[in-house]
Amino acid sequence: MSETPFARTPIIILVEPQLAENIGMTARAMANFGLSELRLVAPRDGWPRKGAKSAASGAGHILDTATLYDSAREAVADLQLVFATTARERGQMKRVLGPEAAIAEAQTALAAGEGVGILFGRERVGLDNDEIALADAILTFPVDPAFASVNLAQAVLLAAYEWRKAAAGALPFGAAPEARSAPAQREMLLSLFEHLEAELDAVGHFPTDKRPVMSRNLRDMLLRMGPSEQDVRTLRGVLRSLGRSRLRKL
Amino acid sequence: MSETPFARTPIIILVEPQLAENIGMTARAMANFGLSELRLVAPRDGWPRKGAKSAASGAGHILDTATLYDSAREAVADLQLVFATTARERGQMKRVLGPEAAIAEAQTALAAGEGVGILFGRERVGLDNDEIALADAILTFPVDPAFASVNLAQAVLLAAYEWRKAAAGALPFGAAPEARSAPAQREMLLSLFEHLEAELDAVGHFPTDKRPVMSRNLRDMLLRMGPSEQDVRTLRGVLRSLGRSRLRKL
Repeated sequence: MSETPFARTPIIILVEPQLAENIGMTARAMANFGLSELRLVAPRDGWPRKGAKSAASGAGHILDTATLYDSAREAVADLQLVFATTARERGQMKRVLGPEAAIAEAQTALAAGEGVGILFGRERVGLDNDEIALADAILTFPVDPAFASVNLAQAVLLAAYEWRKAAAGALPFGAAPEARSAPAQREMLLSLFEHLEAELDAVGHFPTDKRPVMSRNLRDMLLRMGPSEQDVRTLRGVLRSLGRSRLRKL
Repeated sequence: MSETPFARTPIIILVEPQLAENIGMTARAMANFGLSELRLVAPRDGWPRKGAKSAASGAGHILDTATLYDSAREAVADLQLVFATTARERGQMKRVLGPEAAIAEAQTALAAGEGVGILFGRERVGLDNDEIALADAILTFPVDPAFASVNLAQAVLLAAYEWRKAAAGALPFGAAPEARSAPAQREMLLSLFEHLEAELDAVGHFPTDKRPVMSRNLRDMLLRMGPSEQDVRTLRGVLRSLGRSRLRKL
């Protein structure tokens, strides 16, 4: 990744894309509007794929440098700000942003040197709840509710287009980020969540049938709070203290 | 066409489109953002075309009602305001507008009961100069000059998207922040802090001489996160679980 903050752009992350053509068209859409970093999570039919390159129509360099991941979690591990695209609000307690608002947040984060990713789901079924839970906020497009199914590459195009419009209007980024500890990378947060949930499991906090929804709400709450790296260290210290006490008494 | 001015939308006009799939994807993109009237000028391989419907992915009704013309001139004959899309300025003495500005003009014209059309050219070579000359203004997209070739259906998508954003200006799409619980009142927070610190005191978390600064940092962190009332209740539940375990073991 570039060391120049101004060269950094949002990272497009396709989760289990199915059609080679959509992957190629995604690359083309990215190149049209100045995005270059593509991450692929477990493409259904493997990678590289025949057909992607021709659909990329000259944007093959983006496919050549695309990186592969086994899971959405791994693909966002090093990022500080993550959006999940969905056509519908999925009953998660997350902020829901339109493209302009999301891109404005992305610009601020990128200007502060953070990594920003946008998750796009499978062609038919989109992102699952656990994948959406990885994100700070939901990015949704102002589609006609009667016809909400946006093609994968088209969705990427809209994000890239808003990025370029904003970047063209706003360079150099003015807003000085407030002085605080860097936002935690996603992997650091996920690891904190697991620590917390393990402690809570150990004391029977979750009724069995409610564990998924309760833990998702807990994660949403903490994500919404936007913890910094220092915050995560502090919370870990608290958890260690409370957990150690439990172990001592066993 | 509807008699209601607000139901009238820009007409999408594809000039000699070559690929059935692009025509289908165009219909889908239109349906996504509430456009419905499609005109086709001499599709290269005739009309209707196999493959268009499946690419339309449910927007087949737009293909079914699409109307056919022999020339771009005939396709714009009944319209009052026409835009020609090109990636580059073509040396014509016409105004060149970005998507937002073009759609703003379209809205004004539509509100006045005028017919508005947007011309899109052939996949490889776009519109010729005579076709561009039919238009009031050029509509161009803010593409990266190094990679200016936008897929046909993608270009339609961007126009439709800007249309819907503008048309929905007053509508509460996307922008509506999800209903979240009210921010906690200060007293509720202080009581949470005291609960947390009591638990931490009980397990010896604070070295005696550092208690004031550590607890202040902890409070600062939680305040900075801006917890809602629901967040406070969730955190209290977590603390109760972890604390109860400690008490049970004493």
